[in-house]
Amino acid sequence: MAKKNAFYAQSGGVTAVINASACGVIETARLHKDKIGKVYAGRNGIIGALTEDLIDTSKESDAAIAALRSTPSGAFGSCRFKLKSLEANKREYARLIEVFKAHNIGYFFYNGGGDSADTCFKVSQLSEAMGYPIQAIHVPKTVDNDLPITDCCPGFGSVAKYIAVSTLEASFDVKSMAKTSTKIFVLEVMGRHAGWIAAAGGLVEDHGIPVVVLFPEVEFDQKKFLAKVDKNVKEHGFCTIVVSEGCHYPDGRFLAEQGTRDAFGHAQLGGAAPVVANMIKDALGYKFHWAVADYLQRAARHVASKTDVKQAYQLGKAAVDLALKGRNSVMPTVDRISDEPYKYKIGVADLKDVANVEKMMPKSFITKDGFGITEKCKRYLVPLIQGEDYPKYKDGLPVYVTLKNVAVPKKLGDFKI
Amino acid sequence: MAKKNAFYAQSGGVTAVINASACGVIETARLHKDKIGKVYAGRNGIIGALTEDLIDTSKESDAAIAALRSTPSGAFGSCRFKLKSLEANKREYARLIEVFKAHNIGYFFYNGGGDSADTCFKVSQLSEAMGYPIQAIHVPKTVDNDLPITDCCPGFGSVAKYIAVSTLEASFDVKSMAKTSTKIFVLEVMGRHAGWIAAAGGLVEDHGIPVVVLFPEVEFDQKKFLAKVDKNVKEHGFCTIVVSEGCHYPDGRFLAEQGTRDAFGHAQLGGAAPVVANMIKDALGYKFHWAVADYLQRAARHVASKTDVKQAYQLGKAAVDLALKGRNSVMPTVDRISDEPYKYKIGVADLKDVANVEKMMPKSFITKDGFGITEKCKRYLVPLIQGEDYPKYKDGLPVYVTLKNVAVPKKLGDFKI
Repeated sequence: MAKKNAFYAQSGGVTAVINASACGVIETARLHKDKIGKVYAGRNGIIGALTEDLIDTSKESDAAIAALRSTPSGAFGSCRFKLKSLEANKREYARLIEVFKAHNIGYFFYNGGGDSADTCFKVSQLSEAMGYPIQAIHVPKTVDNDLPITDCCPGFGSVAKYIAVSTLEASFDVKSMAKTSTKIFVLEVMGRHAGWIAAAGGLVEDHGIPVVVLFPEVEFDQKKFLAKVDKNVKEHGFCTIVVSEGCHYPDGRFLAEQGTRDAFGHAQLGGAAPVVANMIKDALGYKFHWAVADYLQRAARHVASKTDVKQAYQLGKAAVDLALKGRNSVMPTVDRISDEPYKYKIGVADLKDVANVEKMMPKSFITKDGFGITEKCKRYLVPLIQGEDYPKYKDGLPVYVTLKNVAVPKKLGDFKI
Repeated sequence: MAKKNAFYAQSGGVTAVINASACGVIETARLHKDKIGKVYAGRNGIIGALTEDLIDTSKESDAAIAALRSTPSGAFGSCRFKLKSLEANKREYARLIEVFKAHNIGYFFYNGGGDSADTCFKVSQLSEAMGYPIQAIHVPKTVDNDLPITDCCPGFGSVAKYIAVSTLEASFDVKSMAKTSTKIFVLEVMGRHAGWIAAAGGLVEDHGIPVVVLFPEVEFDQKKFLAKVDKNVKEHGFCTIVVSEGCHYPDGRFLAEQGTRDAFGHAQLGGAAPVVANMIKDALGYKFHWAVADYLQRAARHVASKTDVKQAYQLGKAAVDLALKGRNSVMPTVDRISDEPYKYKIGVADLKDVANVEKMMPKSFITKDGFGITEKCKRYLVPLIQGEDYPKYKDGLPVYVTLKNVAVPKKLGDFKI
């Protein structure tokens, strides 16, 4: 095998553990210098490849790369940019090949979610379509947990832990206040189409908290919802609601839509919590508080799941191992063997089966009334939030690394995106 | 000294560490059984005293009381209820004395903020005004950090740590996304009149984050604000904004007011973050994300400051020590000796000097442009967020105690509040 350099990039919304995958990729590549030359990271994802804006990760010390494991966010910058099909925009693919050739890149590691898996899949076809030998491996990452085949996605376990912990803590709070003040606490969480994150809020039920979960998978029924909340308040004195940003009415309207759309054309959501809180106040008169966790949830490395951090690293490592075995157009996966004790192995999926498939919450994970999670769902979720993996602290704040991100000298002319 | 029972109650908004003060009070009282009989906790604060709804804390095991130290929220229930003056509502004071007499209560420990200090002060005057011997000691607690005389208030250090950590993490996130997507992150924090919590967000400046802080102490100047944000985005590619819920225009209007008022007649706030975010979008066109931390911030025991937990406990203990010394109408305080190394001692303040006085951020803590914190402010804040005091976890979630809260048998007739 001729020695080739590798390209690694982060794509889409970042997470608390995507850098742990980067750490897995780079540390593993460094162990195989006979086969993999340098790891070049794309500055701001695939845009870094298109604009030849590459970062030379060999300029980073082993300690700095190791520190990625406990640093949230995307250390090389991410992007929201989806390659069109080969037919629709051959120019971009030609440019990619031009950059790969110029920098002797034979491995393409792309770290992202569903849209990114599609980009990675397209790149993986370049060998055949355009005659350039490239091995494209997707490293799964998404807080939404909506990639198929893999049992879970790195990033999800930590956001699930954050949401479960935060829901528990805020519920204890509202319980204390309920006698004379706040009786309702509403927490809005991420999850555009899939309710995995919202489901994590349902875990507090076993801690004596009356919680109502609003999933994107269940059409919002205002009357049933208000009746459930009222019942909880009458029985327990208070009620916690965890609402997914993707929760919507039967006609498809989101509970709250800001009217803006992201680069992929998805509606940018936010504000379902105040809508739900005011709805309760208007109908039932209960005093409320509401929170919107937004970026706090997916960036919360300080309360990351140890299981999640470990898997993020393992999948980064596995991606390199697959490349070394000559594989192309694949994604390493987490294959669950048992719930308790939690056992899993690292498997592999074909990208063609991953790209553009969204995995929703199965019906068997949602209670019959549509407002909670089943025992089966709990057995799925609990292992994923197991264990704590605390960052180091200095002066009261976590020590997160910022890399030097030294640019690789350009060899080509400019390229307009 | 004849052996008397003690009354303890939690008042106002609860915090991540108010139970650590309860732990300090109860554990210390248990060490002095020769002088203090039982500790009766008011169920839902002072309302428990008025309605003779007392909790017998002697029914709780030592382990359960010890577990309070790492449990957020108010274990006995809190309330928002302010006693009127003796002249305005003598009936309530007469009832308090009736309950104290019936249960042989000679010590009154009240754990709360400014409004609660006022209630405690009124109770402390009962000896003189109504001839019933009671020693009333206030145990300071408020995330707002706005009590006078004491250097800081238990509850604040932990919320400050949570806000600083969360601001840092979300800022790393937006930095990763800024090239093609979100350039603005707005975090709304608590603090109706005093900007202490917002100030904690300013600590991330030393971690390379361009942050703009909006304090209640500084009248909001939209033009200057937008210019500052734009400058940050042009120089750094992104900008983080930490906005206090109490931020307001020169005419006193809050940036966002929900129109509802709490039991003390204060406007209930929320929603400044989306207002600020949309203001930036409209004027500068930058894509934004926003979060409202609300209860999550004050309940976040999982990332509590070790310094804060320790002081919360110490002040609970000190309150009992003051009572044993025969003191009345006082509050134990944190008296800072030095910033670095951080040294302090436990002092004492007269309640007449504490009640109804709010401590705002001093001018010397806010930068000249009104959008940041000074070095002096950082020297004040950093010791308060020092150290981590992690709760135990089981199945991925923190282990928080729920007490049995056994009621003391009633001896009196009903009382209508």
